[in-house]
Amino acid sequence: MLTKNKILFWLSIGLNIFFLILGTILIARRGGIAYLVKKLSFAENIKQEEITSRPTRQQNRFLSPYYKMRTNAFELFPNTENEIIFLGDSLTDQGEWQEIFPNLNIKNRGISGDTTEGVIYRLDEVISSKPQKIFILIGTNDLWQEGKKVSEVFANYQMILKTLKQKSPQTQVFVQSLIPVNNQKFNLKFIKNENLMALNERLQQLTTEYSYQYIDLYSHFVNEKNQLDLNYTSDGVHLNGNGYMLWKELIEKYVKAE
Amino acid sequence: MLTKNKILFWLSIGLNIFFLILGTILIARRGGIAYLVKKLSFAENIKQEEITSRPTRQQNRFLSPYYKMRTNAFELFPNTENEIIFLGDSLTDQGEWQEIFPNLNIKNRGISGDTTEGVIYRLDEVISSKPQKIFILIGTNDLWQEGKKVSEVFANYQMILKTLKQKSPQTQVFVQSLIPVNNQKFNLKFIKNENLMALNERLQQLTTEYSYQYIDLYSHFVNEKNQLDLNYTSDGVHLNGNGYMLWKELIEKYVKAE
Repeated sequence: MLTKNKILFWLSIGLNIFFLILGTILIARRGGIAYLVKKLSFAENIKQEEITSRPTRQQNRFLSPYYKMRTNAFELFPNTENEIIFLGDSLTDQGEWQEIFPNLNIKNRGISGDTTEGVIYRLDEVISSKPQKIFILIGTNDLWQEGKKVSEVFANYQMILKTLKQKSPQTQVFVQSLIPVNNQKFNLKFIKNENLMALNERLQQLTTEYSYQYIDLYSHFVNEKNQLDLNYTSDGVHLNGNGYMLWKELIEKYVKAE
Repeated sequence: MLTKNKILFWLSIGLNIFFLILGTILIARRGGIAYLVKKLSFAENIKQEEITSRPTRQQNRFLSPYYKMRTNAFELFPNTENEIIFLGDSLTDQGEWQEIFPNLNIKNRGISGDTTEGVIYRLDEVISSKPQKIFILIGTNDLWQEGKKVSEVFANYQMILKTLKQKSPQTQVFVQSLIPVNNQKFNLKFIKNENLMALNERLQQLTTEYSYQYIDLYSHFVNEKNQLDLNYTSDGVHLNGNGYMLWKELIEKYVKAE
């Protein structure tokens, strides 16, 4: 009995040593003491977890380097007459709008990763030319990357529309519905079409109150399962050429109208 | 003695159980069995390490979803006469070229994350309109994201220029030098200005051999420490509005020449 206990005892000690060595190696590989300090700081820890468990596009949000570089460019570009501005996030940014609508004075004011706050922050630059038209599509990143509530995004939209009405009353504003995502085929956490639909419904009402034009894109991009149709995307969120062609079709009459 | 041993024994067992529970929790938090299987597969493991230790822009390379979506759009856009094509990666993609050079038939054929291979793969589409001019700037991601050697990138450039000469001999081709990065101020691994300079030198020679126009951007973007000047960037690689204004200045005469 004593011998058996002894074996168990040393086995147990051995196992502990093994675990300790394993732990040390793992910590060393992840960055040693610095990693440990970071992990042990609880607040930091939570923040880290959030970021690593979210899409990397997180980097490109409001006040990201890209936001800074792009707004710097927007400020340097000269204002022109009768601008037709496309304002929004990556969906707008990635659109070759001048190529889609040639011979019009179109300006791309999309910033990949941008949110309603990012738009509010740069709205003065956008309306500094007193544009003829603004086509706005923003809010997906608010829900997706920042985990905002629908009501919070909606409140920001109220501020955006109010500002536009006050500071550039002659501008025709077109509020485009959010476009669905496909999180059945693609692993997109933190974004649900139910929330996009709920926001769209409130946006439609708000747009009418401001006597602006609401444009439903959502219902045209969705398949029978209420998911972004795979004909229009390769990542479940962004649009391919077919997607932009459909988008063009849906807004063409508003873009080209006098 | 026996009691002391017993205490040690149970302490050791207790520690064993503690480590086991800790390990289980950590694995569960990281994705449970799936995580374990992935980690235990050695090849997979190495691949993971590589990817996480490189910039996240890695995702957007050749044949990434973004590449697919963007080339799909390029194929759907109609060819027009006398196109002036900007061909390249994110530096080109992020440029509002139609706004920088208004009233010219400019097409943005930049794809963020693209490499020389990506360009070779889509070159037929680019020259399908028999463009008047092509301004090319590609290769940074080859060196940075893919760790290619200068000679490998150069070989791809040879293929690009050869193809252009053969398939679209009337097109004026402008080979723009690679733009420096700033890896003193920013944490950019895997990219050295020495390599960019070495490639530029060989590109200049090659361009002359093909009787195309080489445009030196590098020396204008660099500060006295041979780093991308901080006036032109917020992330050490990409350009802000000041950067695009400088770029404009450097190529304007070539863009506007008949």
